Amino acid sequence: MEAFSDGVLAIIITIMVLELKQPDGDKLNDLLTLWPTMLSYFVSFLFISVYWVNHHLLFQKTEKINSKILWCNLLWLFVMSFVPFATSWVGKYPQSFMPICHYFVLMFMAGITFRFMYHLIQRENNQVPKMRVQSIISLCVYIVAAAVGGFCPLAAFVLVIVVTIWWIFSIRIWNKRKSNK
Amino acid sequence: MEAFSDGVLAIIITIMVLELKQPDGDKLNDLLTLWPTMLSYFVSFLFISVYWVNHHLLFQKTEKINSKILWCNLLWLFVMSFVPFATSWVGKYPQSFMPICHYFVLMFMAGITFRFMYHLIQRENNQVPKMRVQSIISLCVYIVAAAVGGFCPLAAFVLVIVVTIWWIFSIRIWNKRKSNK
Amino acid sequence: MEAFSDGVLAIIITIMVLELKQPDGDKLNDLLTLWPTMLSYFVSFLFISVYWVNHHLLFQKTEKINSKILWCNLLWLFVMSFVPFATSWVGKYPQSFMPICHYFVLMFMAGITFRFMYHLIQRENNQVPKMRVQSIISLCVYIVAAAVGGFCPLAAFVLVIVVTIWWIFSIRIWNKRKSNK
Amino acid sequence: MEAFSDGVLAIIITIMVLELKQPDGDKLNDLLTLWPTMLSYFVSFLFISVYWVNHHLLFQKTEKINSKILWCNLLWLFVMSFVPFATSWVGKYPQSFMPICHYFVLMFMAGITFRFMYHLIQRENNQVPKMRVQSIISLCVYIVAAAVGGFCPLAAFVLVIVVTIWWIFSIRIWNKRKSNK
Repeated sequence: MEAFSDGVLAIIITIMVLELKQPDGDKLNDLLTLWPTMLSYFVSFLFISVYWVNHHLLFQKTEKINSKILWCNLLWLFVMSFVPFATSWVGKYPQSFMPICHYFVLMFMAGITFRFMYHLIQRENNQVPKMRVQSIISLCVYIVAAAVGGFCPLAAFVLVIVVTIWWIFSIRIWNKRKSNK
Repeated sequence: MEAFSDGVLAIIITIMVLELKQPDGDKLNDLLTLWPTMLSYFVSFLFISVYWVNHHLLFQKTEKINSKILWCNLLWLFVMSFVPFATSWVGKYPQSFMPICHYFVLMFMAGITFRFMYHLIQRENNQVPKMRVQSIISLCVYIVAAAVGGFCPLAAFVLVIVVTIWWIFSIRIWNKRKSNK
Repeated sequence: MEAFSDGVLAIIITIMVLELKQPDGDKLNDLLTLWPTMLSYFVSFLFISVYWVNHHLLFQKTEKINSKILWCNLLWLFVMSFVPFATSWVGKYPQSFMPICHYFVLMFMAGITFRFMYHLIQRENNQVPKMRVQSIISLCVYIVAAAVGGFCPLAAFVLVIVVTIWWIFSIRIWNKRKSNK
Repeated sequence: MEAFSDGVLAIIITIMVLELKQPDGDKLNDLLTLWPTMLSYFVSFLFISVYWVNHHLLFQKTEKINSKILWCNLLWLFVMSFVPFATSWVGKYPQSFMPICHYFVLMFMAGITFRFMYHLIQRENNQVPKMRVQSIISLCVYIVAAAVGGFCPLAAFVLVIVVTIWWIFSIRIWNKRKSNK
């Protein structure tokens, strides 16, 4: 199951590159006009990477799996598979309310599904640690970003990037401790 | 062989997302006009997921493989590889007879090929349980859906979704028993 | 190395499906006008499948690998990666000389590269059996098909399909013997 | 982690093929007008292959991984994921300054990131050999190529191809020694 999830995430992450269409001209300006697409691509890449690492750490500690977990994992992959679609919509209309809102709602749904899967796994596997309050905070941030995104897209992106970087650093600490033992 | 099949299924499942073109505008309406594409994508995702889980459970119990099984597996993957094509055709003409009929005929052919592969594997591996009557029923449902699809697309989709959900639940029970032992 | 080759082949095989564009209409006729694309897709799928099985059987018996083999394998993957490109060109101009010729020349080049890799592996690994005369015959058939293809495309395709089916059956026998032991 | 990186590289390498659009006609000339695309595809394929082999050799000797290495690896994959984008931009404007410059700057950034990851891994794993001076030279070559590329694209490509072939041969020798033991 982990190999399949890995494969799907690897494909999602690289499929997004396909949405990066060639610039219409050969000047630096033509490249720079793509910056909203680039930004949303970068955020999505970060977003999927953090999930991928979390997913890996989670399943490393998981020993018992039941079919509820299996279907929940597939549901989560289903939500994640919309990320390239949402990313390219934001890239095309970087100033509009709906695409940005849709983008962050999707992130929220991915978070909820993952959290639910975490809960299911934890009920079967005692050694899995309690989910951190951090995950609830990031869910809230996604909702705020979805609401704020329509008025001030940049603020929403900055919020989400900050949360993601927070994740990157907190995962770092956890790993370090593990490697110290 | 399982890794290759897994890889192909993972790619098929995510390639379908590429067919989800960006909406033409930035309003909620532009997103909602994509609902036939979304629906067919959702059904195809469910369809491939159920097959993927079934395929996994089947090969976990398989010990002997001969070349007939190998080629039958490749034939099945060939049929499955048309799913993104059929899905996007349905998404484009959600009200027309042929695309919907073609979609369900494809599901039927995938079912027949899988059932044949199951039969071949069972002949070599005694520990594989008999195929359930459920698989025959779902083959019939696909034919009925192909016939009904032209007149009433929604009815056909509802039929197939019901069968798929039935599969999800019956697989669940089977897994649960296994984890109880 | 095998996992990477497997991955690349799995992606090549499914990328070809992306070339299957949606029909322009919703009638059966619109589907049937795609038959040259379908045919070339089918032949390419067969072609890659046979190579994939051969590649697998070869590396199962390979114990020593040197860097020449590694680069030869990458060269072979490079040639194989043009198959979707050649397939879609043939599908677009099914009656023209160049695309069909290019298609079969590509098959020939894939054959030569694979044969060369086989040779390199055999020199290092005594347990790998001699390459069969069959592989030389199929190389000749690809050349003949490339020459004939311009005048009579169907004849060329029939030739190549016959050779491929011959491979499928001869691999079958080899496998059977192995499973009998 | 290696499986995921492998998967991403495999997808990147084959996604580039998607950029090889069908020729507009059915003559040999129509194929030959694609030569800039072909050339850049070939160079990118070589480039990714060399990195893939290097990445493999590096992680084979790596035993301890910390989270810095993990994120550095993801950063490197992020840079690499732009290769298909840069490749197709060069293929479209083979005579222009910016695309070629962007292409080689990307190669340079991939080199820097990889070198940094190498450094991080080496600090944790004593058995990993010192990075060769070759890697610094190739970083310089990428910068020179980026600067020269605008005036004389062919010279830049020849430079980079020479460096890549140098890598292929030096990796070959290293492997040979290993297999001699």
